[in-house]
Amino acid sequence: MGFANSVLPEGSGKSPAPGRLTSVYSEVQTNRLHHPLPLPSVLRGPFKLLDGPPSSAAGNPDEIAKLFPNMFGQPSAKLVPTGSVPTGLPQGLRIGVVLSGGQAPGGHNVISGIFDYLQERAQRSTVYGFKGGPAGIMKCKYVELTPDFIYPYRNQGGFDMICSGRDKIETPEQFKQAEETAMKLDLDGLLVIGGDDSNTNACLLAENFRQKNMKTRVIGCPKTIDGDLKCKEVPASFGFDTACKIYSEMIGNVMTDARSTGKYYHFVRLMGRAASHITLECALQTHSNIAIIGEEVAAKKETLKNVTDYITDIICKRAKLGYNYGVILIPEGLIDFIPEVQQLIAELNEILAHDVVDKEGLWKKKLQQQSQLLFEFLPQAIQEQLLLERDPHGNVQVAKIETEKMLISMVETELEKRKSEGQYVGHFKGQSHFFGYEGRCGLPTNFDATYCYALGYAAGALLHSGKTGLISSVGNLSAPIDEWTVGGTALTSLMDVERRHGKFKPVIKKAMVELEGAPFRKFASMRDEWALNNRYISPGPIQFIGPGSNNVNHTLLLELGAQA
Amino acid sequence: MGFANSVLPEGSGKSPAPGRLTSVYSEVQTNRLHHPLPLPSVLRGPFKLLDGPPSSAAGNPDEIAKLFPNMFGQPSAKLVPTGSVPTGLPQGLRIGVVLSGGQAPGGHNVISGIFDYLQERAQRSTVYGFKGGPAGIMKCKYVELTPDFIYPYRNQGGFDMICSGRDKIETPEQFKQAEETAMKLDLDGLLVIGGDDSNTNACLLAENFRQKNMKTRVIGCPKTIDGDLKCKEVPASFGFDTACKIYSEMIGNVMTDARSTGKYYHFVRLMGRAASHITLECALQTHSNIAIIGEEVAAKKETLKNVTDYITDIICKRAKLGYNYGVILIPEGLIDFIPEVQQLIAELNEILAHDVVDKEGLWKKKLQQQSQLLFEFLPQAIQEQLLLERDPHGNVQVAKIETEKMLISMVETELEKRKSEGQYVGHFKGQSHFFGYEGRCGLPTNFDATYCYALGYAAGALLHSGKTGLISSVGNLSAPIDEWTVGGTALTSLMDVERRHGKFKPVIKKAMVELEGAPFRKFASMRDEWALNNRYISPGPIQFIGPGSNNVNHTLLLELGAQA
Repeated sequence: MGFANSVLPEGSGKSPAPGRLTSVYSEVQTNRLHHPLPLPSVLRGPFKLLDGPPSSAAGNPDEIAKLFPNMFGQPSAKLVPTGSVPTGLPQGLRIGVVLSGGQAPGGHNVISGIFDYLQERAQRSTVYGFKGGPAGIMKCKYVELTPDFIYPYRNQGGFDMICSGRDKIETPEQFKQAEETAMKLDLDGLLVIGGDDSNTNACLLAENFRQKNMKTRVIGCPKTIDGDLKCKEVPASFGFDTACKIYSEMIGNVMTDARSTGKYYHFVRLMGRAASHITLECALQTHSNIAIIGEEVAAKKETLKNVTDYITDIICKRAKLGYNYGVILIPEGLIDFIPEVQQLIAELNEILAHDVVDKEGLWKKKLQQQSQLLFEFLPQAIQEQLLLERDPHGNVQVAKIETEKMLISMVETELEKRKSEGQYVGHFKGQSHFFGYEGRCGLPTNFDATYCYALGYAAGALLHSGKTGLISSVGNLSAPIDEWTVGGTALTSLMDVERRHGKFKPVIKKAMVELEGAPFRKFASMRDEWALNNRYISPGPIQFIGPGSNNVNHTLLLELGAQA
Repeated sequence: MGFANSVLPEGSGKSPAPGRLTSVYSEVQTNRLHHPLPLPSVLRGPFKLLDGPPSSAAGNPDEIAKLFPNMFGQPSAKLVPTGSVPTGLPQGLRIGVVLSGGQAPGGHNVISGIFDYLQERAQRSTVYGFKGGPAGIMKCKYVELTPDFIYPYRNQGGFDMICSGRDKIETPEQFKQAEETAMKLDLDGLLVIGGDDSNTNACLLAENFRQKNMKTRVIGCPKTIDGDLKCKEVPASFGFDTACKIYSEMIGNVMTDARSTGKYYHFVRLMGRAASHITLECALQTHSNIAIIGEEVAAKKETLKNVTDYITDIICKRAKLGYNYGVILIPEGLIDFIPEVQQLIAELNEILAHDVVDKEGLWKKKLQQQSQLLFEFLPQAIQEQLLLERDPHGNVQVAKIETEKMLISMVETELEKRKSEGQYVGHFKGQSHFFGYEGRCGLPTNFDATYCYALGYAAGALLHSGKTGLISSVGNLSAPIDEWTVGGTALTSLMDVERRHGKFKPVIKKAMVELEGAPFRKFASMRDEWALNNRYISPGPIQFIGPGSNNVNHTLLLELGAQA
């Protein structure tokens, strides 16, 4: 029960997968195929769904109600054990699954989870995997999933079983295409595995199908390594645990290197453009000397100079203690959090669109004074990048700025100044790193593997019970797996509206790092200690067996009030 | 026997180490502390040393004989089991150890090994750890190593127990300082843990001490992640195994990412300036689509255009198969292998030293025609880097060139050309990576942990038996640990001379990738297959327990004639 191996045909063991035909498996990969996926106890026996009270919205409920007349207000649902197997549930369901957006470790297990649910509880069901993300729905490009096809992806990283994509189903024509696909395949349900945007899209699809009196129901699933899709009912997005542990392994290694050589400051940029959860979690895991949290920078309305000075001050203090090395973590999206940088970029876009950038620099006079000062403060390489590298619309490409190199250069300049003033006597050498792609497709940790399998299995239960417009929700994650809670949360209850081009658009607000939340408060209470005394922890490579292999990340534990 | 836990005082378990006082240990780190270190059977019971025949040199034996009148010709030694514990060996030895050069995983275990040997077989011995590399010898900066001090570093990464340094003992004054330290501490022996240069230096020290009739003997130990210090008797340098596995974990993740998104070519630069062993091993472990081996580029006298074309050709073929993604491995030292680049840099250094670089580019006429063409072929960013970033001597800083970014840019240009000619219809996006510092200080693999412990234990046996000028040698590494052979190889037998400033200098020749060797031949026989069909392997994170945890790297297995 609940172990998908049982649904596999004999002998499908180590043979190459149809989908991964060209792959060869390492010993660790092969071993992961056989890793058991225990289900929470409520999913192991017979269960029924209990509806909660009517729901509202995260903000502007009236507007959300207008945008989702059919979905708004519907209750969240909770799975509870029941004495006997419920009768009357349909068999032979036709279900589609789609992966949407960037990769996150565990996506394959969500698919394994819903697949196994249907095999076990809705016999003669068919599962279609839409290929290449939402575009696969619109173009009706899919593959029919079979046990043989799915098996080799079990507990494996990546999204390559059916691949993903970043298209959105937005225009009336695109919704029409989705309807046609749903009709053509006679879909009873669709599982959308994605981030905040994709889950908003899932709810719009659910609303649309219901409005058209179609039978196709839509359930979402919380995916993003960035960790910014979460709320009370959905305590974590999958992939965050694995990605942070992969980055923390690397950071731990770099820390040991820093301490051994004693001559480098490593500036490590980490993925996470919108929120700084990854940086915060990696700081909690490794005790880096410095970690910049974008949300704090924004809340304190700090300037780039403030951030530079904060780093420089610590480097100077460390030099006095004899430490001319350290590790500094920086979120990818840092400069998006700094108001003056946004202002400069807006002005630059305006100027570059209409004026000539003369070599003498007269054009700079068109910048407001604060922006002019900031521009002059930036390292030359960054200045050039801002002026030269532009996107097809002619806009400055903020995403291309290598923040870690920029900070190294600014800190260097500031240290030289302080040296000349006699305030700094150390020696500084910066090394830059970007840890990004390495973390999105690793083999999922035991936590992510099990969590994803439960999310997928729960999604199967929700669709089977006729639910739509919910996001699969597995909770109580700091308890043993057996005690995890399972249910579905109304997607509209997570939504607010934003005004774009004069219209209200529904959005699931990104969960930012809460400065009053337990993870940040723990970090804030320790950071001065970590800054000056080297309390480095090297988490080491992710282990799948033995001590530490079932540990959960600090962010989740702290948010759940458990001891991290 | 052979397990250092036995020499530890009660209760030193998880408490912070004197040397790592400020550290906190992760669960994996703590667990590694308790990982047993089995010794080869010959080291477990009583053994004696058997001398081999007189040795010669790797080249120019006459010159080596002149440079090492006392060391030259001495036999290598082999440890063999003996019936009874040898009597008459001295007790209470005074031994120094030093870590020299860049970090490599396992260094701490070498120290644990020699320490445990002395504790077990030469009671009342004292071990001094020289701090910060050879400078610690010259300045007599050391720490006395105790079981409590050493214990927390067992099976841990980094060199931070006593740290390392890149100084060399070269001048007569420096040799004098080393003598003074040896006299002051009344050293019976010194263990130098380092790469080719450091082991050459170890032999010069051994020669010098012997010449001065000092009792201090010197033994070397083969360390470098680059894998370029090896020979028949010394089949591997330690750290290579761990570093390659860490890089391969990352490459495997990036591969899965590439296959999942289907839109990026990842250009991964890997450490290894002199030799391309790391790149070759990572290719064998992961089956990357392309791996450039510097030694082959040099042997075929390839130009940068050849390398660019080779990559571009494969990208075009892959595009026809529908693959617009891939993973390409590049050794850090690639451009050092390309003769025309060396020529250009030599000319640039000359011109930059004497002439003005005018904005109009008239200075370029001073370049030879081939160099001029190459310069124009380089991406603009690299041109600027060559002209602007120079070292304190005014020389072009080759090491700072980000080869992976340079290749992306050149491939991009070539693909645009082919597109305009109708020969290429794909889309190309390059992503650059440098995997370097992450690999030098990871927790050592089970192989490196055990290998290093044996190397250190063997070094203790060699010093105890009065040997000097040997490098600790552990062989038969593809067999079970029990059957590993143990001995010492005459350092002079690994040496040749190079003429520098009109003088002969002894050098241990770096072991380059052999184009006729088994690892390269295996790679060469597979690479066309890997280029077009995606035979990706994702090795996953290093495991310390369970399947795969005791695997040895492919290079070593293939070189030893075993099945990889």
